[in-house]
Amino acid sequence: MSAATRSFASDNTAPVAPEILDAIRRANDGDAVGYGHDAWTASAVRRFREHFGDATGVYFTFNGTGANVVALSCLVKPWEAVLCPASAHLQTDECGAFERFAGSKVIPIATDDGKLRPEDLEPHLRHGHDEHHPQPRIVSISQSTEYGGLYEPGEIHELCDYAHERGLLVHVDGARIANAAAALHAPPRTITADLGVDALTFGGTKNGLMFGEAICFFTPDLAAGAAPFARKQAMQLSSKMRYVAAQFEALLSNDLWLRYASHANAMTARLHERVRAIKGIRITRPVRCNAIFATMDRGAIARAQAKVFFYTFDEALPEVRWMTHWATRPEDVDAFAESLEAALA
Amino acid sequence: MSAATRSFASDNTAPVAPEILDAIRRANDGDAVGYGHDAWTASAVRRFREHFGDATGVYFTFNGTGANVVALSCLVKPWEAVLCPASAHLQTDECGAFERFAGSKVIPIATDDGKLRPEDLEPHLRHGHDEHHPQPRIVSISQSTEYGGLYEPGEIHELCDYAHERGLLVHVDGARIANAAAALHAPPRTITADLGVDALTFGGTKNGLMFGEAICFFTPDLAAGAAPFARKQAMQLSSKMRYVAAQFEALLSNDLWLRYASHANAMTARLHERVRAIKGIRITRPVRCNAIFATMDRGAIARAQAKVFFYTFDEALPEVRWMTHWATRPEDVDAFAESLEAALA
Amino acid sequence: MSAATRSFASDNTAPVAPEILDAIRRANDGDAVGYGHDAWTASAVRRFREHFGDATGVYFTFNGTGANVVALSCLVKPWEAVLCPASAHLQTDECGAFERFAGSKVIPIATDDGKLRPEDLEPHLRHGHDEHHPQPRIVSISQSTEYGGLYEPGEIHELCDYAHERGLLVHVDGARIANAAAALHAPPRTITADLGVDALTFGGTKNGLMFGEAICFFTPDLAAGAAPFARKQAMQLSSKMRYVAAQFEALLSNDLWLRYASHANAMTARLHERVRAIKGIRITRPVRCNAIFATMDRGAIARAQAKVFFYTFDEALPEVRWMTHWATRPEDVDAFAESLEAALA
Amino acid sequence: MSAATRSFASDNTAPVAPEILDAIRRANDGDAVGYGHDAWTASAVRRFREHFGDATGVYFTFNGTGANVVALSCLVKPWEAVLCPASAHLQTDECGAFERFAGSKVIPIATDDGKLRPEDLEPHLRHGHDEHHPQPRIVSISQSTEYGGLYEPGEIHELCDYAHERGLLVHVDGARIANAAAALHAPPRTITADLGVDALTFGGTKNGLMFGEAICFFTPDLAAGAAPFARKQAMQLSSKMRYVAAQFEALLSNDLWLRYASHANAMTARLHERVRAIKGIRITRPVRCNAIFATMDRGAIARAQAKVFFYTFDEALPEVRWMTHWATRPEDVDAFAESLEAALA
Repeated sequence: MSAATRSFASDNTAPVAPEILDAIRRANDGDAVGYGHDAWTASAVRRFREHFGDATGVYFTFNGTGANVVALSCLVKPWEAVLCPASAHLQTDECGAFERFAGSKVIPIATDDGKLRPEDLEPHLRHGHDEHHPQPRIVSISQSTEYGGLYEPGEIHELCDYAHERGLLVHVDGARIANAAAALHAPPRTITADLGVDALTFGGTKNGLMFGEAICFFTPDLAAGAAPFARKQAMQLSSKMRYVAAQFEALLSNDLWLRYASHANAMTARLHERVRAIKGIRITRPVRCNAIFATMDRGAIARAQAKVFFYTFDEALPEVRWMTHWATRPEDVDAFAESLEAALA
Repeated sequence: MSAATRSFASDNTAPVAPEILDAIRRANDGDAVGYGHDAWTASAVRRFREHFGDATGVYFTFNGTGANVVALSCLVKPWEAVLCPASAHLQTDECGAFERFAGSKVIPIATDDGKLRPEDLEPHLRHGHDEHHPQPRIVSISQSTEYGGLYEPGEIHELCDYAHERGLLVHVDGARIANAAAALHAPPRTITADLGVDALTFGGTKNGLMFGEAICFFTPDLAAGAAPFARKQAMQLSSKMRYVAAQFEALLSNDLWLRYASHANAMTARLHERVRAIKGIRITRPVRCNAIFATMDRGAIARAQAKVFFYTFDEALPEVRWMTHWATRPEDVDAFAESLEAALA
Repeated sequence: MSAATRSFASDNTAPVAPEILDAIRRANDGDAVGYGHDAWTASAVRRFREHFGDATGVYFTFNGTGANVVALSCLVKPWEAVLCPASAHLQTDECGAFERFAGSKVIPIATDDGKLRPEDLEPHLRHGHDEHHPQPRIVSISQSTEYGGLYEPGEIHELCDYAHERGLLVHVDGARIANAAAALHAPPRTITADLGVDALTFGGTKNGLMFGEAICFFTPDLAAGAAPFARKQAMQLSSKMRYVAAQFEALLSNDLWLRYASHANAMTARLHERVRAIKGIRITRPVRCNAIFATMDRGAIARAQAKVFFYTFDEALPEVRWMTHWATRPEDVDAFAESLEAALA
Repeated sequence: MSAATRSFASDNTAPVAPEILDAIRRANDGDAVGYGHDAWTASAVRRFREHFGDATGVYFTFNGTGANVVALSCLVKPWEAVLCPASAHLQTDECGAFERFAGSKVIPIATDDGKLRPEDLEPHLRHGHDEHHPQPRIVSISQSTEYGGLYEPGEIHELCDYAHERGLLVHVDGARIANAAAALHAPPRTITADLGVDALTFGGTKNGLMFGEAICFFTPDLAAGAAPFARKQAMQLSSKMRYVAAQFEALLSNDLWLRYASHANAMTARLHERVRAIKGIRITRPVRCNAIFATMDRGAIARAQAKVFFYTFDEALPEVRWMTHWATRPEDVDAFAESLEAALA
């Protein structure tokens, strides 16, 4: 793939943003004590607390699966279960990493749009509190959703209230929380911690970083005794932590997170504008962030993929997914829209 | 810690080597398909196969614990056990990550020098092959050892033969295999694959990389069906794999691995030369690679650590450890030796 | 609960059948080598092979959850998944024991009647064979079903063919396989092994035994290396195995299994006859074996449960379940039907 | 093996004691609600509380491995470790069941006599409380020991104090706690709960029962939230619980436990008396309960085993083990001693 090429396959095909790479370069200065006992890590944690509150517990991990698994495994006992949409990354794309590591059950809930609502949870909370049944303990949702959608703040608030009243915790898989915050014109805190969310995995890799995610526990002491050990056992403790921390320090400074995510969203909006009128393309989901889902003729999909790779998300329909990211250029979008149009001609 | 400061605490306190950082910068060019389906990964795998043989299975991971756990977990069933020295990183410093992920037992074997020999294994192979006892399946050794020592090639050969005759596999934790190869003046292949080693975790983080380790399976098809899945479940599959791969591509080119490791070893030799004559310091282990173990008076240790941090490895004796790395400078060594001498004065 | 009392809560409320207790008493003769190396175990295994074929691998366990977990865990790697109806005992009533022990994922499939058909499986087999997704490996069905229903032999045959063509195995949770065989007037082999079923957990506890289930592997060598170890690790290896074996030896002799199950079924048929005409009771599921599901007014349920305990299976409807067993007497049925009628009056 | 035959292989080769079988027969009366919600279970729990104190948490399991695993897994997080003698049943004879179920590490400590003392623990408590090292949480000892030895009450008291001062809990694997209590002429409570022991697995199978062990938690609320779920997930929850409970109810009544254990001990004492003078037999361990360890000529061992089976405990020496139980008869002992003498002649 040449330097000029931009893919619409996923936001993880993006290169590292220049400000992030520069932050890494600046951190590459002399020796630093390992495993997070360094100044860069302390500074990045402070930055997170500026954004999310002083009591936020912050733990960096290598990747998103690691972040989800560590966050959730700190909060469940092996006989407690996680409720999530059937479309959750946790359920479909992490190869059962959580089950293997935590020994717990994930209970997938079928939904039309990848969003959980209190009425979706209710049927799964009826079992008694006896030892025959895994005990629901966590509601895990993705913001933005796996279908590029959004929870409105009120929806998350309602879900948190419902969960807390029943002794459950709420976790947000925020691999794309920045895209959601940008789309909602709301600081990340106002769509998570302030609404009652207990734990967030704050994505970095899909928003300009080389690697690295951050787990934020908002409920004080929620996982303080567990998280360092769970992260280590989950093989997510970086010895040269400063290189993760420096990236997040940069991302959370000068609104870089917002700039990257807003750009990604804007490029999707541009693509949406271009393709919505193309005959043969039917947009299947509300376009809110940096992903478009659409159905097309199978032959056209094949022709289009031969030129620029993207994923067929659901082979049965078939439904495809197009994503943009911080580095997608307007001319990439335009060229891609043209190539789709050509494939359908 | 200022730019000038060099620590003697561990080789993971080192910054990233300039050639490695440059390789990352060069890989940061356009989009790339995720999860290792990119050109950089293909190229890095080829480089490993040039070094270790065409049939080598190569899997990159984020960190050393991840590499050990993925490698070993591919090779054992949950009722099979790993035999290792009681001093193994796997046993003492990975927080039971292997047990949690694999569900298997690690059987630590007490040794004086951190090296396993056939006679150490024999008592652990006497149990019958019935279901009451975990079945020994893998012998895992560290090269260089956790005490900075070395297995001679003949020793590894003998261990492999002994293990294979009894249906066991041999894994080498090579977090510092480069230091061993440099010290033995032997290409890595000649001290692993060529001697019968079945699987190697080839360290990068401690030899100039930002992050990243590589698992090499030398026995064809040994883990082909398992490794991709085990790596994913172990949360060690990087989505932006090119940034791991590019580092290894560079490390294995132009003998960078050897240059970094040789330098680290040479700095330890220099330090050894300086401190061996200091009254009050007793070197406790053969100095072969990039670590020195020594006993000193407790007060002197405290005084020295206050100036330059290093670890007390065994509080009981007390025994301390000093390590050097690719970026340690001769003047750092000299200053450190002087500070030790001052602490003992 | 007095001696005369019979419950309609479950078939596990039954006492031990007299022939079974007598078999235990006869086995209580002198010393016997532990862990299944005794004559009773050898004899019981022979009896199973008479019923299911000479190559059948037979492993006794303590209980049904243990039997399911051991059987399934022998057949999956941790990244392989089990597909089952959302109503499966494995999914709803085993507290995630399988996930904890095997580290694997259970993928529940919503069905109306608790029965899986090829078309239910198809959507779950579309994911690629890459490491992001748990790989479906086993289809697990219950015969009789959790709703007291039955798979016709042809349905199981079709399911086995469909599964095998796609590289999947078929497991039957046969906690009530005897009730199914009795209802279908077909020897157990003809509704399992002969149809292509790979593994069966053959229930004892719910059909007259004190405790004990048997895992049968029909595909030769399917789990021969794994099963003894998995059973031991699953804490299901009885040291005084003869007392499990002697029960099964008796159960499989003189058609005792059939007599007990037929009686249980007949008592349910009698109850069905009695209650179908009662105003206020709506039978919700086909009555095929030893369970009846019905809806009633909540007040009536409470009044009836106060006299004779039974379970409300689905609080939402509410739907209740009544079960009979080998020891249910006609007069118990009649009295129970009268008490239901009275509660509804 | 004929009715008359008595084995000296293990105390688990024994038949069920007549009073126990009678208790089972009496419990076989009508229906009973499953999973421990029956009168027999309530009564057996009361009996345990009479023996061990009103706050004792009592959980019945199927077998000894299950009891150990459930008890310990309730008390550790996956990053916490169990310290035990290298000879512990948990370490050597449970096939890693604990590691697989709990995901935690067992740290075996070499001892001469299978007994742990504070000075044995100390070297394992030196590691820092950071996330790199499994955190020792439980000391698990066997009483009587795996070598047929005994801890004196004062030794357990000292161990408990030492452990508690360091934040550790003490678990006693009491598969043969009755033999220990009988030998020490001390009620079980006085050698466990009263000395500070936190959790005990109280053995039944080796002391006259058909199957069944009991976990006793002495520290109030220690595992109240966890134990029911852990037992269920560990596949140790019996649906027809009354048959376990009735056995324990009998065992703890009328000093049956003491009568059986005292007899077993007495038979070993008789055997000891007979064999100590036989030329060629060297008793290798103090004979305190119901086991004798001895070395003999290999040929003699083979000749003796051909007549009456017993285990060679350590092939290297070789060291054999002879055990007696509640049903061993004086004439069995005498005949066995004669056969040993003949084998050595």
